Amino acid sequence: MEQKKVAILMGSDSDWPVVKAAAAELKRLGIPCEAHILSAHRTPAAAAEFAKNARAAGFGAIICAAGMAAHLAGAIAANTTLPVIGIPMKGGAVDGLDALLATVQMPSGIPVATVALNGAKNAAILAAQMLAITDEALAAKLDADRAAMAQQIAAKEEKLQAELAAL
Amino acid sequence: MEQKKVAILMGSDSDWPVVKAAAAELKRLGIPCEAHILSAHRTPAAAAEFAKNARAAGFGAIICAAGMAAHLAGAIAANTTLPVIGIPMKGGAVDGLDALLATVQMPSGIPVATVALNGAKNAAILAAQMLAITDEALAAKLDADRAAMAQQIAAKEEKLQAELAAL
Amino acid sequence: MEQKKVAILMGSDSDWPVVKAAAAELKRLGIPCEAHILSAHRTPAAAAEFAKNARAAGFGAIICAAGMAAHLAGAIAANTTLPVIGIPMKGGAVDGLDALLATVQMPSGIPVATVALNGAKNAAILAAQMLAITDEALAAKLDADRAAMAQQIAAKEEKLQAELAAL
Amino acid sequence: MEQKKVAILMGSDSDWPVVKAAAAELKRLGIPCEAHILSAHRTPAAAAEFAKNARAAGFGAIICAAGMAAHLAGAIAANTTLPVIGIPMKGGAVDGLDALLATVQMPSGIPVATVALNGAKNAAILAAQMLAITDEALAAKLDADRAAMAQQIAAKEEKLQAELAAL
Amino acid sequence: MEQKKVAILMGSDSDWPVVKAAAAELKRLGIPCEAHILSAHRTPAAAAEFAKNARAAGFGAIICAAGMAAHLAGAIAANTTLPVIGIPMKGGAVDGLDALLATVQMPSGIPVATVALNGAKNAAILAAQMLAITDEALAAKLDADRAAMAQQIAAKEEKLQAELAAL
Amino acid sequence: MEQKKVAILMGSDSDWPVVKAAAAELKRLGIPCEAHILSAHRTPAAAAEFAKNARAAGFGAIICAAGMAAHLAGAIAANTTLPVIGIPMKGGAVDGLDALLATVQMPSGIPVATVALNGAKNAAILAAQMLAITDEALAAKLDADRAAMAQQIAAKEEKLQAELAAL
Amino acid sequence: MEQKKVAILMGSDSDWPVVKAAAAELKRLGIPCEAHILSAHRTPAAAAEFAKNARAAGFGAIICAAGMAAHLAGAIAANTTLPVIGIPMKGGAVDGLDALLATVQMPSGIPVATVALNGAKNAAILAAQMLAITDEALAAKLDADRAAMAQQIAAKEEKLQAELAAL
Amino acid sequence: MEQKKVAILMGSDSDWPVVKAAAAELKRLGIPCEAHILSAHRTPAAAAEFAKNARAAGFGAIICAAGMAAHLAGAIAANTTLPVIGIPMKGGAVDGLDALLATVQMPSGIPVATVALNGAKNAAILAAQMLAITDEALAAKLDADRAAMAQQIAAKEEKLQAELAAL
Repeated sequence: MEQKKVAILMGSDSDWPVVKAAAAELKRLGIPCEAHILSAHRTPAAAAEFAKNARAAGFGAIICAAGMAAHLAGAIAANTTLPVIGIPMKGGAVDGLDALLATVQMPSGIPVATVALNGAKNAAILAAQMLAITDEALAAKLDADRAAMAQQIAAKEEKLQAELAAL
Repeated sequence: MEQKKVAILMGSDSDWPVVKAAAAELKRLGIPCEAHILSAHRTPAAAAEFAKNARAAGFGAIICAAGMAAHLAGAIAANTTLPVIGIPMKGGAVDGLDALLATVQMPSGIPVATVALNGAKNAAILAAQMLAITDEALAAKLDADRAAMAQQIAAKEEKLQAELAAL
Repeated sequence: MEQKKVAILMGSDSDWPVVKAAAAELKRLGIPCEAHILSAHRTPAAAAEFAKNARAAGFGAIICAAGMAAHLAGAIAANTTLPVIGIPMKGGAVDGLDALLATVQMPSGIPVATVALNGAKNAAILAAQMLAITDEALAAKLDADRAAMAQQIAAKEEKLQAELAAL
Repeated sequence: MEQKKVAILMGSDSDWPVVKAAAAELKRLGIPCEAHILSAHRTPAAAAEFAKNARAAGFGAIICAAGMAAHLAGAIAANTTLPVIGIPMKGGAVDGLDALLATVQMPSGIPVATVALNGAKNAAILAAQMLAITDEALAAKLDADRAAMAQQIAAKEEKLQAELAAL
Repeated sequence: MEQKKVAILMGSDSDWPVVKAAAAELKRLGIPCEAHILSAHRTPAAAAEFAKNARAAGFGAIICAAGMAAHLAGAIAANTTLPVIGIPMKGGAVDGLDALLATVQMPSGIPVATVALNGAKNAAILAAQMLAITDEALAAKLDADRAAMAQQIAAKEEKLQAELAAL
Repeated sequence: MEQKKVAILMGSDSDWPVVKAAAAELKRLGIPCEAHILSAHRTPAAAAEFAKNARAAGFGAIICAAGMAAHLAGAIAANTTLPVIGIPMKGGAVDGLDALLATVQMPSGIPVATVALNGAKNAAILAAQMLAITDEALAAKLDADRAAMAQQIAAKEEKLQAELAAL
Repeated sequence: MEQKKVAILMGSDSDWPVVKAAAAELKRLGIPCEAHILSAHRTPAAAAEFAKNARAAGFGAIICAAGMAAHLAGAIAANTTLPVIGIPMKGGAVDGLDALLATVQMPSGIPVATVALNGAKNAAILAAQMLAITDEALAAKLDADRAAMAQQIAAKEEKLQAELAAL
Repeated sequence: MEQKKVAILMGSDSDWPVVKAAAAELKRLGIPCEAHILSAHRTPAAAAEFAKNARAAGFGAIICAAGMAAHLAGAIAANTTLPVIGIPMKGGAVDGLDALLATVQMPSGIPVATVALNGAKNAAILAAQMLAITDEALAAKLDADRAAMAQQIAAKEEKLQAELAAL
């Protein structure tokens, strides 16, 4: 079976400095991805169209980043049954609570898999985890990343001991 | 010029017990209205279609009620340049803050005129105020309602004085 | 019929750097507007007077910007049945939540059409949408702006593809 | 010098079940009071009029209770330099946070002395404390109440020991 | 390939009345599932053990429901690279905000796919969407459910028109 | 009768840059004041002692500024029946909400007159309003300040018209 | 060495229905305790006195429960260097957030060990953990409780499987 | 009896600039401590292992600092009956409310002694207070620190008087 792609959609080009971490992580994991600016409010028809065609176009998951009254993930989820991952962006009101609640509090029937505020890298990892359900090689890569994470902490631990001794 | 109608859209039939106050107020003011269940997430195409045709169909304003990640008003506003009034519904998280933020924090270019949580009657009055910009008879009716409001308070004041004396 | 004007009121001259986006947008749309500093607390009589005379003075809608315990929009709405649009300003407590709640949570009978925190441009567009209910030329202008918005996104999409390729 | 009166104003008669605790406390303290329904939004002119005449009418302080976008205290404070005490009422959004922020976050120059949500009895005590600044007899009464409070706790302590022993 | 199972874990048996909607939905979709009580704090070793073995045991996704300082989803996600879906439960502080933030705000590297407060049914649908990435029959079932949803709304619309006429 | 003094207490010297606006305003109004660092937690005995002696020492009101779990105003109010004015300071958690709630939500019997976050100038004006209940000269000064405020706005209005014309 | 006692203080007798779980848990663990009503605001001198004498009186830790602007734990901590455990009580504003922030956000130098809202049982366990630092028998008891907790979950798991099968 | 050590654990090395104040304070008090980077999510097994062995290794209390969905303190507390002190770190969402709620809202049976946001120094003092329950010399040191605190305030008071005179 052909490898599924992941789509990264953002409501505004101003989201890109944060969102590009998702693209970089997918690239590092060898997962093909596309990125597009599609707004639930400024280009609603194009957003709906993209969502409707996504499965047929070979996508396996769709990552959506939006801030404020963040509707993009919900608008995409309304038009596809592919899993949709929402990244709420900081910068609106109440230190990002607007985007978080607007992304996660979806009504019954239309879930959005929400990650942390500005959590672009985690959105990519979550997409990879979904694809890895039936892709053992990718699962192995994700497991290896976990081991690497632990090793990075070990390296930082060493530095910490030096700083502690110097207090 | 023919009188404009007002549309009342709600994301779920469970919103009706609150939302019907908007229909009742419009009826009292003699403004023709329609009410429909249209969900930004469960019937996105029908919602977009309704919005696109609304001006041509003789509507002057659209009231949208939704709770939780309340996207309905935004989804309608994305597909029409008629004024869209959003009623955030209580019942989700943080005592309604989810619906309020998801309704009001719209991005630049696509406003939603947001009223108070569960503010169905005020949504109807706001719609009437918009129509009254160029309808002197309706404006006079709204002004008369204000005078009536003050009189109702005078009646309650009398009752209050009796209760105060009885303390 | 003569074209209606839009009033832009602000509680303090310190709001102007944000609020002037409303004036600029109205000018771009060819809608005559006035701007004034009127405080619900520091000049309450002048504010009430302005509101009472606004319809007769040819205004069709009134935009009010205020922060903290933002009462200006409510104080104006209490004295006119013209539609009043409230812009809650950031800068008080809880990252603007004080101004948002103080603007939107109006009691039954006296609505304020609230837009996003610091949402000056959207306030102007909402005022234009209200005037456009019975002004086909203005409605056409607003529709054209939507099309332009979609084209701007197309231009940004191109730039995004270049940045994605360079990752 | 004649004893000053305290005014108790409320935005709606529905506030009375909570607010009457203020009237009862003032009565208990022997302070003459009046209570009125006056709304910042439904009877703005009457509210302003009351505030402007209050000092001349023999009032020493004004207690204002209001919920939601609670403007009453601010609207009164804008029209008098008597001390204004605000009671934010529960029942709007975010468990009363709307009324609290709308009451307390007043702009520079126009303070409102805000007490706890639904804090009607404390509003009355605060008014009494203000009058007691120059009224030694009233100050003595307030001091005696404090001693009584401590004694009530002593009585409850006894009951607690019985319950603790029975655990 | 054998069909993947979905695990439903909950921090306490008191979560079951809400969480069973996830089990019911998975059953309706023909997806095998297991449900277990496993607490991040009361049975941490068992929880970690379950997570470590889950992929080998044939699970494709793990749903975790927990309230208050909701750590279960995070504790499971720390021990597997399967996708973990978090259901924050209402009932702690700030109307569920504690559980929502504790579930969604995961650090870089360890995502949790968070759904709405008490969103058990959506958690099941999200798990099904993940499995459907490579299961066309399941994808077709999910698409059919969307069509059915739209039809249910049509039926409710009819009832609404009757109620509207009776106003 | 001798003029009452106002005390300004702060929990930490780091509050002074904000709190000194209260001292400056009292000085401008010709009201004698003292300022002291007294902490509810670091110098509780001295704080209680100050409060107990304050009325006898000629104080008419006590202003207390504190941040985070802001207990100072409450600790002072517990030891005097003079009116106590609380200034919640920004800088702790949730953009100042911790200090605001810890200052205003006092239990029955012990009110604190709370002003806006960092509202030092308003605290001074509120203290002056309290003293002015029985001081006609001071009341006249406060009334004059209001008129001056309106004039300042008129001056700013002129500048605004120039900026509006230049848009 | 004599076994240390634990004190349970509450601001009001209305806290007892929740707080008694702390007394019951201490009794179950065989730790002697006292319970008293002591208010930071209504009996400040008695509260300070209790705190100052607590170590000499044989107490090892002090549990304090209070709601709203919950100052009791802080007021006690200000007068002793014994560890003070704070239980914020629900029932004030923002669903308990007022008590939580007023308890936990203590200034540098005076910590309060804060547990969950209404977390009376956990406050007792935390006190026991403190005493168990140098009491091996008590530590063993606490470890045994953990094992028992895991067993209770096993029993509930069995019941869950029956309910799951019956879906 | 040998002196107990205190462990300082942090979820990330980026917490060290704040957390080192805890290490410095423990050093100043003459309490031996260790500091380690251990993540509830990135190194869950190592974190659990550390907790299980902590009592036997001579630790008397464990301080845990973590931000966002701050699980570290809870994950440690789940694996030991030593008292665990949680420092919620700012920097995630809602100005640190995510970390605070995720740390303090622990379920029944597994308390975490939570201090203020970024409250590293207070965490160290709280740990010292726990050890001082049975260590009179340490208790005397803590008492002496309190006296020193009061003296520092006296020094600052002098400086304040100079600044006040210069206003």
